[in-house]
Amino acid sequence: MASKITPRAKDYSQWYLDIIKIADLAENSEVRGCMVIKPYGYAIWENMKSVLDEKFKETGHSNAYFPIFIPKSLFEAEEKNAEGFAKECAVVTHYRLKSDPDNKGKLIVDPEAKLTEELVVRPTSEAIIWSTYKKWIQSYRDLPLLINQWANVVRWEMRTRLFLRTAEFLWQEGHTAHATKAEAIAEAEQMNNVYADFSQDYLAMPVIKGLKSESERFAGADETYCIEAMMQDGKALQAGTSHFLGQNFAKAFDVKFANKEGKEDYVWATSWGVSTRLMGALIMTHSDDLGLVLPPKIAPIHVAIVPIYKTDEQRAQIGEKVDEIIAALKKKQIIVKYDDDDQKRPGWKFAEYEAKGVPVRIAIGPRDLENNQVEVARRDTQAKTSVSIDGLADYVEDLLAEIQVNLLSRAELFRKENMREVDTYDAFKEQLEKKGGFFLVHWDGTSETEEKIKAETKATIRCLPLEMEKEPGVCMVTGKPSKQRVIMAKAY
Amino acid sequence: MASKITPRAKDYSQWYLDIIKIADLAENSEVRGCMVIKPYGYAIWENMKSVLDEKFKETGHSNAYFPIFIPKSLFEAEEKNAEGFAKECAVVTHYRLKSDPDNKGKLIVDPEAKLTEELVVRPTSEAIIWSTYKKWIQSYRDLPLLINQWANVVRWEMRTRLFLRTAEFLWQEGHTAHATKAEAIAEAEQMNNVYADFSQDYLAMPVIKGLKSESERFAGADETYCIEAMMQDGKALQAGTSHFLGQNFAKAFDVKFANKEGKEDYVWATSWGVSTRLMGALIMTHSDDLGLVLPPKIAPIHVAIVPIYKTDEQRAQIGEKVDEIIAALKKKQIIVKYDDDDQKRPGWKFAEYEAKGVPVRIAIGPRDLENNQVEVARRDTQAKTSVSIDGLADYVEDLLAEIQVNLLSRAELFRKENMREVDTYDAFKEQLEKKGGFFLVHWDGTSETEEKIKAETKATIRCLPLEMEKEPGVCMVTGKPSKQRVIMAKAY
Ligand SMILES: [Zn+2]
Ligand SMILES: [Zn+2]
Repeated sequence: MASKITPRAKDYSQWYLDIIKIADLAENSEVRGCMVIKPYGYAIWENMKSVLDEKFKETGHSNAYFPIFIPKSLFEAEEKNAEGFAKECAVVTHYRLKSDPDNKGKLIVDPEAKLTEELVVRPTSEAIIWSTYKKWIQSYRDLPLLINQWANVVRWEMRTRLFLRTAEFLWQEGHTAHATKAEAIAEAEQMNNVYADFSQDYLAMPVIKGLKSESERFAGADETYCIEAMMQDGKALQAGTSHFLGQNFAKAFDVKFANKEGKEDYVWATSWGVSTRLMGALIMTHSDDLGLVLPPKIAPIHVAIVPIYKTDEQRAQIGEKVDEIIAALKKKQIIVKYDDDDQKRPGWKFAEYEAKGVPVRIAIGPRDLENNQVEVARRDTQAKTSVSIDGLADYVEDLLAEIQVNLLSRAELFRKENMREVDTYDAFKEQLEKKGGFFLVHWDGTSETEEKIKAETKATIRCLPLEMEKEPGVCMVTGKPSKQRVIMAKAY
Repeated sequence: MASKITPRAKDYSQWYLDIIKIADLAENSEVRGCMVIKPYGYAIWENMKSVLDEKFKETGHSNAYFPIFIPKSLFEAEEKNAEGFAKECAVVTHYRLKSDPDNKGKLIVDPEAKLTEELVVRPTSEAIIWSTYKKWIQSYRDLPLLINQWANVVRWEMRTRLFLRTAEFLWQEGHTAHATKAEAIAEAEQMNNVYADFSQDYLAMPVIKGLKSESERFAGADETYCIEAMMQDGKALQAGTSHFLGQNFAKAFDVKFANKEGKEDYVWATSWGVSTRLMGALIMTHSDDLGLVLPPKIAPIHVAIVPIYKTDEQRAQIGEKVDEIIAALKKKQIIVKYDDDDQKRPGWKFAEYEAKGVPVRIAIGPRDLENNQVEVARRDTQAKTSVSIDGLADYVEDLLAEIQVNLLSRAELFRKENMREVDTYDAFKEQLEKKGGFFLVHWDGTSETEEKIKAETKATIRCLPLEMEKEPGVCMVTGKPSKQRVIMAKAY
C-alpha cells in the first residue's frame, strides 16, 4: 500500500491527495466541489468536535440551530458581509420538481413553483442569526448571549481541494452578543485562544496567534483574530478565525438593548469558527511518505494489534493473551483494534495501520508469547522495541503521551527552521522562492504595499502576531516606518 | 408564567405551541417553514443524539458525511423515491449573486451563474449515498456496509408545525448495504427495535412496532417498519421508520457485488431514520398544563435548586449548604442548576423550572437549614416532601429513577385506556369522533378500503402491529377476510 503514496518531495499536492486516499478519509463526490467524508475521516472529525464542544461549553456557550436558508433580503442587510460572500452563494429559486412531459421518468424544475424571494444557502450565518437575535435581546439582562452552532455551510469555490476548500464543508460557528465593546473583544480573543490551545494540545500543531490586516479580514468584521499554522511545504494554513464584529450586524439588523440606566445602545458582536479544514491542517502537519500520522489525543484508534501465526492453535493462543492485553489497555481508556483477519497478511496490516496513522502498533507471534513479550512500533519515529507483557499497558500509556509531545516538538522545530526575519525585499523574494516558509518582515501598514507584494510574490500577510516582540523598523518595500514585524507567507 | 399556557382541554394545538414557547425550545424563523432550535431545545436533542449515536455504534455502525446537494439526474434515478419527494424539493439553480444595477446595495441572482444541472437539497440521501456506494462495493468482503449520517434535510412542506413538520429538520439517516435479503431485513428490524427501545427506555414513550401498509410505505421501500406513539389527544405520531429497500437502489445505481463463489448480484439495502420530530413526540407524550415534563434520562437539568431567603446572610448560609448538596449530587452524575439569581423571586423560579420540565426541584430556606432538611418537589406528580439533607443525594437518585418509570407507566396506562378493538365500521366512526385514540380493526388488505376509510374519517392505517396476537377476522368495511387486526388512528 505504502508504495501508492507519491513522496512529499516529488509532488506535495499529489502526496496530500494520496494520503487522504490511502488513509480512507474522504473523496470527491458526484456533486462538483462537495466531498464525502468517509467513516475513518469522520471519526477524526468527531473527536475534534467533541473536544471543541466541551471547551465551548466550559467557556459558557450553548449550542443551538438556525436555518440553512437565508432570505436574500436578510442576506444583503450587512453590506460588506453580503459583498464578501455574494460571488459564491448557492441560491434556491424553486421549491418543486415535476415530471418532464417530453421525457418519461425524468424531472424538471416546476416553473410554477418559483419562490417570491430567493433563498441563499448559508455561507456563514451572521445574517439569519442576527435577524433572530433582534427578537431575543431587549435589555442588558439578555446579555451576553453566547451561542454556538455545528452546521454545514456552502461557498461556491471555483477551485476546490479535499478538506482545504470545498463547496460544502462542516464547521462550528459561534455567534455572541455583548453589552460592551471591551467584553466582545475579550470574547473574540478568548475563542482565538481556545482554538490555539486546541491546535497545540490536541492536534500537536503549533500555531501563531495574530490579527489579520484590513484586507484579509472577514467581510463585516472590525478585527479578525486568527491562528496560522505552517504546513510541511512551508505554506501557511489559517486554521481558525475569531471576529470582533463591532456593532456592524447590530446596526444592520437594528439590535439594541437597554442598559442598567435604561439607555439604549447597539449590541456588540463576535463570531468565530473552525471547520473540516482542520482535517487538512492535521494531515499536512504530521504525515509522511508512509501515510497519515495522528496525534494520539485525536486518533480514533490508539493501538493496532497484529498477531503473527502459522497455525490455528498459535492464533488461538495469541488471541487469549491479546484478550488480557486489551483488557489492561481499555482500563486506561486506550482504544485498541485487534486485527486477526485471517485473509490478510501481517505485512499488509502493518502498512494499513501505518497508512491510517495509528500511533502505536503491537505485533505478537509465538516466540513473543514464549518470552512473554510483544513488539511495539511507534508510528511517529518508526522505532520498534520489544516490551514485556507485564507492564505493557503502562508502557503504552507513556508512549502515547510521548508521541503526542514528540509530534508537537517536531512541528515546532520544523517551524522554527522555516521562519526567518528578512529586512530587504530582494532577500524576501529570493528566500521565498528558494526556501519558502514564514517571513517576519516590516511592512508600512498600507494596503498598497500589501497588494504589491501579493501581486509580485503571491505571499500575503498571514497576521500581525500578538505574542511576539514588537520591535519597530522600516518597511522592506517602501522604507516607511513600521511598528512591528508581520508574518508573510504563501498560504492555502 | 403558567397562566400563559392554553389548557390542553381547551385547545390542544395551541397548548402544544405554548409549551414550546414557555419552555423556550424553538421558534419559527424568518424563513418560511424553517425553525430555530433554541439552546434548551437543542440540549434535549443533543441528549437524544448522544444516546442514539452510542446505540448505532454498539450495533456496528460508523458515521460519515455525504453532500447536501443531489444532482437532479441522480435524484431521479430511483423512480418511486424521486416521485415521492419531487413535489417538495428545494432546488438550487444558481451559484452566484451580483449587485442589482437598478438598486444600489441590493443583490440579484446572477443570470450568468446558472447551473448546467440543477441541484436538489437532500430530502433524504439514498440517491447520493447509493451513487457513492457503487464505488465502494465490489465484493462480499465490502459487505455489510453499515453507515449512519447526522444531517439536516429539507422537505418543502406546505403546512408546517414546530418540530412535527418543518421545511428543514435535523435527523440521522442510516444507510446499509448487505449481501443477502435476510440480512437486510434483520438489519431493518434491528434498527426499528433500537428506536423502540430508545423511545421506551429514554423518552418514557411507549410505542407500537409495526409494518406500514403499502400505501404508507417510504417511497422506494419494499417494506417499512415503524414505531407509532400515542399523543395525549389520542392521535398517532410516527416516531421512527426503518426501511427494507430490497434491491431497488442497487438496481437504480447499478451496485453489484461478487459473492464468495464469484457470482454477481445486486446489493440489498436498508435505510432508517429519526428526526427532531421526536422532540414533538416527547412534548406531546408527557407535558401538562403547567409546561413541559421531561423524563430524567433525557433532561438537560435534573434538579433545580431554589434558595429562599430574605437577608444576604441567609443567602450566604444557604449557598454554603447547597455547595455540599451539589457536590454530593454531582458524584452521582446528577446535573444540577442552582438558581440564586437575586433579581427573581422564588415563585417565579418555581414556575420557570416547572415550565421547562426539570424533573426535580429543591427549595431551601432558613428554617430548612435549621432542621437540616430541604423541600423536594417532583415535576411529574407535583408532590412535595421534606427530606433530610443527610442522604439527600440517594433520595434524589432514587426519585429520578422513579419519575422515569412513572412517566412510562402513565403513558402506557393512557394508551391502554385509549386503544380499543372495534368490529363494525359504524362503531369505528362513532368512537373515532367521540373518543379518538387507536383502533384495532380488521381490514381486508386492499388500498381501496384503506382509501375509503381515510377519505371518510381521516384515519389511516398506522401499522400492522408486529407483536400482537394475530387473530383472523372480517374487514369492518367490506366483510372480506382479514388475517390480523391493524391499528387505525388519526395521525400527525
Ligand atoms: Zn496552551
Ligand atoms: Zn426494551
